[in-house]
Amino acid sequence: MQRSLIAFMTDYGHRDGFVGVCHGVVASLSPETRVIDLSHDVPPQDVRHGAVVLARAARHFPPAVYVGVVDPGVGSARRGIALRAGESVLIGPDNGLLVPAAERLGGIDEVHELTNSSWWLSDSDLTFHGRDIFVPVAARISAGAPLESAGEPVKPTELVRLPAPRAEFDDRTRTLTAEVTYVDGFGNVQLAGELPATEDSIGPVEVRVGDATRVVARARPAEVFDEVPAGDLLLYHDSDGRLALAVNRGRAADLLGVRGGDTVRLEVTR
Amino acid sequence: MQRSLIAFMTDYGHRDGFVGVCHGVVASLSPETRVIDLSHDVPPQDVRHGAVVLARAARHFPPAVYVGVVDPGVGSARRGIALRAGESVLIGPDNGLLVPAAERLGGIDEVHELTNSSWWLSDSDLTFHGRDIFVPVAARISAGAPLESAGEPVKPTELVRLPAPRAEFDDRTRTLTAEVTYVDGFGNVQLAGELPATEDSIGPVEVRVGDATRVVARARPAEVFDEVPAGDLLLYHDSDGRLALAVNRGRAADLLGVRGGDTVRLEVTR
Amino acid sequence: MQRSLIAFMTDYGHRDGFVGVCHGVVASLSPETRVIDLSHDVPPQDVRHGAVVLARAARHFPPAVYVGVVDPGVGSARRGIALRAGESVLIGPDNGLLVPAAERLGGIDEVHELTNSSWWLSDSDLTFHGRDIFVPVAARISAGAPLESAGEPVKPTELVRLPAPRAEFDDRTRTLTAEVTYVDGFGNVQLAGELPATEDSIGPVEVRVGDATRVVARARPAEVFDEVPAGDLLLYHDSDGRLALAVNRGRAADLLGVRGGDTVRLEVTR
Repeated sequence: MQRSLIAFMTDYGHRDGFVGVCHGVVASLSPETRVIDLSHDVPPQDVRHGAVVLARAARHFPPAVYVGVVDPGVGSARRGIALRAGESVLIGPDNGLLVPAAERLGGIDEVHELTNSSWWLSDSDLTFHGRDIFVPVAARISAGAPLESAGEPVKPTELVRLPAPRAEFDDRTRTLTAEVTYVDGFGNVQLAGELPATEDSIGPVEVRVGDATRVVARARPAEVFDEVPAGDLLLYHDSDGRLALAVNRGRAADLLGVRGGDTVRLEVTR
Repeated sequence: MQRSLIAFMTDYGHRDGFVGVCHGVVASLSPETRVIDLSHDVPPQDVRHGAVVLARAARHFPPAVYVGVVDPGVGSARRGIALRAGESVLIGPDNGLLVPAAERLGGIDEVHELTNSSWWLSDSDLTFHGRDIFVPVAARISAGAPLESAGEPVKPTELVRLPAPRAEFDDRTRTLTAEVTYVDGFGNVQLAGELPATEDSIGPVEVRVGDATRVVARARPAEVFDEVPAGDLLLYHDSDGRLALAVNRGRAADLLGVRGGDTVRLEVTR
Repeated sequence: MQRSLIAFMTDYGHRDGFVGVCHGVVASLSPETRVIDLSHDVPPQDVRHGAVVLARAARHFPPAVYVGVVDPGVGSARRGIALRAGESVLIGPDNGLLVPAAERLGGIDEVHELTNSSWWLSDSDLTFHGRDIFVPVAARISAGAPLESAGEPVKPTELVRLPAPRAEFDDRTRTLTAEVTYVDGFGNVQLAGELPATEDSIGPVEVRVGDATRVVARARPAEVFDEVPAGDLLLYHDSDGRLALAVNRGRAADLLGVRGGDTVRLEVTR
């Protein structure tokens, strides 16, 4: 089966066994399905972080059923949904978490609200939708059940979406004002937006943080970390193809004092 | 095979590779066995925490061999045991860790002390029983070896058991004095015991901690988190069916300042 | 296939999904390959720690393809390599990380530099060699591709190796001066070197740290932790067969105030 693979991402952490329980549910409902853990250490209830992790992963998997659960609204009226994007399916809360990954996979072809409660665990709980709704639905889809049986169709335009990250280039001041979209575990700082020129044709950029006028550091455009001395900032395209700042053998996020959601300004010096 | 699945829980953490080594031992001894990691982030040597994690997970798995290792007594005279509960087997130290899960699985049908050293790793170490004893025994059972070959039978009544958590309802003061049995990663507070009425028929409860007379907060009975305003305490039945306190979009354990083993008093206000 | 198993170790952590992406790459390139996670919580860029974790694990696995990525030099000129040791293959950066494990597996039989870029991901990135080079190469080897196709042969003597840990026994003062090679998550302290006598024939040792003259604690030779009272230090051979210090029901590293790379002196008192 094309979809006998589940890629599973949550903010559950590993201390409580919530992830393991969900694996048990899959093993009960669809013993042939393989589950790959994408991450369960998404910062608690940080939907934006989870959306980036899921989107970055998606293009490197074969067709799969993705389950993403970062869900501050569990126990509220927010919907559970299943999206089809090409041969893959994404399942989780309707809070914007799944949309960027679906777009990476070629765009949203079909959406269903998870209303078919006969697919849920028989003693479904109202507070643990991962175990009781999302994972059982994913297990059935991965075993070959038709997506349309998951519940009522929904128009893709009705989905909740995360606000687009801010990014603006001012031609006059030659400055890109960009939101920090992601800081990874090595302290590399991914930015929204792009400079108008290729890196090769620009000189170092002066980096400011927020509204401050002080230049925190200069970053040299580079393709690999060792093009700049250890401890120096560089501007590069990261493993996801996005504009990013790194420190050779160091942590750019610490050097700049930024985290996800902050604003960085890059002024091109020539 | 019914038991070709191992569910594995320890307090090893992931930094040292101890968990990975145990997976390697299973792959060596029983290549067809699948291993699901339940949790390896049980707080070090916290047997009670581990017992709750294992018991919560058990009913959501197909028949399996459970290996639980939270073992402050490794290197002492405590026994290694294998329990059969219905079609499942639980393997680990005889320190109470496995008993609540076995009871969830229908009760203890059979117990063997792990005395058959021919089943252990040939160069068994005296300090890493997970790798050298529990996991090799589980691998053999999962591959179809008979449980009784693991070692001498033991009477279930001779097993070490954890003390029952305190829980008492005083009809006169309409107050439940209950031990905190578990705090999960979202800060939800699970309690021992139960109120005499269904939640629907009671009003808010006043929550006190320990022996203090001060009411820390009032909790409204609810079925889903969003029935109370964000930041407010609610009283509900958690995903394990137990009485629990939560804060809508917050952390009840932080609001109350409690952790596992503490005492909470709930006074029903009408 | 003998090598259809990948054992995977990195310092990626789990928060960013980098590990999950690599699993996805394996699932895409070699769906039959099984991946066992050895550890992904190696302290960032701590090559020595990673080398110990990999070496400790190796002898407990069936023949496998090991992928180890702890790589402060990513983006520099350091080579990617594949080593064959008996029936196993080890893949990662040429920075010493893989060598101790290869020696545990019987020694290095063959080395290839990873120069065959047709085996890498088609849009290989210059900063995420785990996903784009090491894991794709491992997936192909695990699926049966010949090792020599990975790239140019290299002489084993040309490999980068970690410096040997310090260990010296002074017969006159009866003192072993030994580097701390590893501190595990339970605080047990593994040492380089060995005492000239078996533990049974020696009395307690006096333990000093660094150059200090003060005796921090006395450690009694023991085979199991409970041979000494709770809180006391013992000297034993750990689950890897190495000389080590532990505290019964406590943390030796905290008692001694040491971590990996520090020096400990053990004076045999008779």
